[in-house]
This record gives sequence, structure tokens and C-alpha cells, in this order.
Amino acid sequence: MLFISKKDIGKISQEIIQNAVKKAYELVLNNSYNMPDRIHVGDEQNTLLLMPCFSKEFFATKLVSVFPDAVKFNQPAVNGVLVLADNKTGQPLAIMDGAAVTAERTGAVGGLGVDLLTPENLEIAGILGAGVQGLSQARYILFNRRISKLWIGDLNLKAADKMARILEKEFPQVTYVTTDNSEELVTASQLIIAATTSNRPLFKNDPGLVKGKTFISIGSFKPDMKEFPDAVISNADHVYVDTLFAAKESGDICIPLEKKVVEPEKIKAFSSLLAKPVCLENKTCFFKSVGMALFDLTVASAVYKLALKEKMGQKLEF
Amino acid sequence: MLFISKKDIGKISQEIIQNAVKKAYELVLNNSYNMPDRIHVGDEQNTLLLMPCFSKEFFATKLVSVFPDAVKFNQPAVNGVLVLADNKTGQPLAIMDGAAVTAERTGAVGGLGVDLLTPENLEIAGILGAGVQGLSQARYILFNRRISKLWIGDLNLKAADKMARILEKEFPQVTYVTTDNSEELVTASQLIIAATTSNRPLFKNDPGLVKGKTFISIGSFKPDMKEFPDAVISNADHVYVDTLFAAKESGDICIPLEKKVVEPEKIKAFSSLLAKPVCLENKTCFFKSVGMALFDLTVASAVYKLALKEKMGQKLEF
Repeated sequence: MLFISKKDIGKISQEIIQNAVKKAYELVLNNSYNMPDRIHVGDEQNTLLLMPCFSKEFFATKLVSVFPDAVKFNQPAVNGVLVLADNKTGQPLAIMDGAAVTAERTGAVGGLGVDLLTPENLEIAGILGAGVQGLSQARYILFNRRISKLWIGDLNLKAADKMARILEKEFPQVTYVTTDNSEELVTASQLIIAATTSNRPLFKNDPGLVKGKTFISIGSFKPDMKEFPDAVISNADHVYVDTLFAAKESGDICIPLEKKVVEPEKIKAFSSLLAKPVCLENKTCFFKSVGMALFDLTVASAVYKLALKEKMGQKLEF
Repeated sequence: MLFISKKDIGKISQEIIQNAVKKAYELVLNNSYNMPDRIHVGDEQNTLLLMPCFSKEFFATKLVSVFPDAVKFNQPAVNGVLVLADNKTGQPLAIMDGAAVTAERTGAVGGLGVDLLTPENLEIAGILGAGVQGLSQARYILFNRRISKLWIGDLNLKAADKMARILEKEFPQVTYVTTDNSEELVTASQLIIAATTSNRPLFKNDPGLVKGKTFISIGSFKPDMKEFPDAVISNADHVYVDTLFAAKESGDICIPLEKKVVEPEKIKAFSSLLAKPVCLENKTCFFKSVGMALFDLTVASAVYKLALKEKMGQKLEF
């Protein structure tokens, strides 16, 4: 059995991770996976999420704990462990840092959205939310498109500046602009990715702001969370979600559905894009991701295969 | 974070493990634990069991996979990984071999049954089933009582002989007798522990065989599994189960209840024995264990504390 740390996972190329995310959608298209509903276990104010998923070759169980009070002890509120096992024999193969797998796969989910829902000559993009996931999304924009300018928006300008400085070292050819004004960012950008924990739309409900652009929402994983105003979904020519049933857990989908500003038929599974790409010229696109255990499974499988090949990770004898 | 292997766990004293099992019953008595129902996830012919449990200090999740076809690949059908975490901050603290924790704690559950349900001067005991768990039960009998003779019964006499040879090295003062005739074993023994996967009672339904003895059933974890004839439960002065609700999953409890050969009120929680010991003189006792995640939690917690103290295990950097 192998232990694969955050550091190991961080060294893996974006190409490998994004291909693994693509593989997840292919399994959805071929219906060759088994993903039970994620299981919520409560203990006082804390939550343990258990996310099992099976492919023909492997199965993975991600354990995610959400401890809101951990910050009082200077610890992260969210922790994760992922166990990858062989789906022929049941033998455990690897233990991985679940938070690192989540961070990478979520970046790549956005990245694949950029790849399939923005023109190849995209020049200016904006990230709303300068947290860990904002940084990961930025890296995947820059992996998929040769943009000239990246806007970074956060109410905390220091966080936005810090993220710009990190990216400057990795991608010095890009111009970085930081702002605490999201309308300014949306006005200037052709692609907008939001990775926040916002409960209210991050900019005003103005069709003029959104037309002809691509919007990707990575936050808003609960019905009372919303990153984009209704103008995004109601003006979008193409609306995609990573998982049709789970996306209804997000306020960015359930609120417009409830208000009937969007027809349910307009919302399509992202996997269908792999089978049949759409015309993007002058189109407005919206992609809402809520994540799924199948991404963890295909990314962990790819990480494990690479670890075997390149002798990565720490050996554990059971 | 620590990785604690089967080898490490095997080195831990029986006293520590059995005290940890006792601690689980104390938590039951004080109602200071949270044990959600175990979760069964199916994938074709295979099963993944997820067993989370919380105490004030720690929480543990045991993942057990049951792959009946693994034997075709010369692999064990059952595998397990246990993740122990801090219940203040949610931080993962240790990964352990789940099968090793299960094997040890199940031995100690029987051991505590021996301690509280057999006279101190017990001389002759018998084990039905010479598998991994039979061996573990034997070690815990020998830890709790200075017996002179141990009967080992199995339809496969070679397995029984092999187990006798292993025990002879560890406990040379004991006489070992092997048999494929369980009536002979029950007739000769004052304590009988069964650790089999039998679907039918292992000996005949004869009150004369059972009176004045102690019976412990470790197998029969499903409604269609049964180790003892009804004469055991119907003649028993004391009937205990480790978990009142889950014991009804065992044929050794649900079949006699259904046939009304026992009143439900006669079946008591083993934890009550800790609060109030019972008179054992010339009494017939029956203890049915089906196991519970709380045992895994308290044993894993004790293993972790010892590992920290004695610098056991392999360090993992997340």
C-alpha cells in the first residue's frame, strides 16, 4: 500500500489531473461507474461526509470532516482522507490526502469547463475569490488558455494581491489586476470563474454585463448559496452542470428554477459536451459544478498509477 | 499522522486491548458516544461497510470491504482500513490495518465475556472453529483464565491441529485436544466459544449438554447464521448481547425469539454486567456478540495513545 501526500499530489502535471477529470465524464457517458449518494454523518456541530465510488478497476472512499470550530485551534475546518482500493480483490492500494485530491480535481473540473466552453483565443479572464480554490482555478485557466490578463477579485484586496504574487512567479507573461469591485472584473473579462462561499450574487443582475461571456461557478454547493445573478442563467445559450441531480443542491441552479427564470430542459449534463461539442461563437455559457465522488475516484486512480510508475509516495506494509 | 500496521497492533498487550473494549461498554453505560448505523454500500457481488463512531475525544471510521471472489486471486475476501481522527479539530491522526483492529477487538470482546461470565477457577474450555478468530478467542481465554485443558474443534482436523501447535508455543502449560466432534467438545468443556460461519447449530439440541456452562457466540452475524441450538438460550440463566438492537441481526437471537423459545426481556445488554455483576455459581450463561463500531473506536484510540507513547508506527506527512 502507498501513502501519497499533498506534496506528491502537487507535483503531478495538470494535464494528468485534467485528463482524469475528463475520464470521469467518459465513465458517466458510458454509464460504467457506481456512485452511491454521499453519506452525511452528524456529530454535534460537526459533519463527516463519506463519499464512496466504484469503477470497474478501482474503488475510492473519500472521508471529509467539516469541523467549523477547528479554526479556534488554528486548524483547518475541512480535512480529508481518501482510500483507493482494487475493485477486483478489494485490497487497499493507497491512502491519499483527501483535501489535496479535492483541490486538484476541482481546479481541473473548472479547467475542462474552460477548455470546452471558451474560445481558444480567450484573452482576459477573471477569478472571483482569492482562496485556495481561486488559485487552483487560475492555474487551470492558464493551463488551458494563453491569456494576456487575469483579473483577481476579492473583498480582501490583500488576499487578491497575495494570489497575484504567487501566480506572477509561475506565469510571468500574464498581467495581473486585482480589485475588490466584482462589476469591474466582470465588465473587463470574457471568462469569469467564481470560487467563493457567497450566499448572495457577487455582481448586479444586469444582462448587459453577462452577454457573450462564459461563467463558471465552483462555490455555491448549498441551496442557500449563490454566486451569480439570475441574468447569467437566463441569458445563457448553454447551461451545463457536472451532475444533473446534485446540481439542484446549489442556489445557482435551484433558485432560478424555483423562480422559473430558467426551464429545467435548458440545463444539460456536462458529459454530453464530450460527445457533442457546441458552437461557442458570441454565445453566453454557464457551467455550474458541485463536484462528485467520481472525480475523486478517477483522479486518485491516475495519481496511483503515476505513483507506481514514478516510485512516488511512501510504502506502507499492512 | 501515523500509520499503524498489523505487526504493530499484534505487539500490543491483551490487557490494553481488553481494557479498551471495557471502555466501550463504559461509554455505552454513560451514553457518551455517537454510533450511527453501519452503512452498507453494494457494488455487484461486493459490499463496502462504512462504520463511523464518535467519542468525546476521537472519532473513527472503519472501512471494510467484503469481496467474495477475492479468493480466486489468492487474496483475503475481507479487508479493512481504519481512520482515527481528533474529535476537537477533525484532524486525521492515524491510519490502521482495519482487519487487525477487528481481529484483536473481537478476541477481547470474547475475553471480557470470559472474565465476567465464567468462574475464576475455570479448568476446561473449548473453541469451535479453528480460524483466525478462533485463535484470537483462544488467546483471550488463556489471558483471562488459567485453564488446564483447551479443546479445539473443527471439521477440518488439520486446521485444529495447526492452531494447537501455534498455541502450544505460546502457552506450553496447557493440554490441547483436537476433535471434529463438537458434541464431544461441548460435553468436556465448561466454557464453549464458537467462532464459525455456520448456518446450522454446531451440536445437538440437548439441555443435558448445556446446563451449568457458559456459551459465547462470536460468529452468526446474519439472521440465517446460527452456532448454538435453542437449548443454549432457553436453558440460560443469563443471556447477554453486546448491542441490543444489532444482536437481532444474528440467527442465534432472532430465530429463538421468533420461535418464542426465549422472552425478549431475558436478553440483556452486556454493558449492564459492568454496573452489576451477576452470580455465576452453577449457572448457565449465554453471550452473543455481533460487534460494534464503538469497539473499533476505543481500541483504535488505545492503540494510538500507546503508539505515541512508545514511538510505534510509521510517520506520514500529509
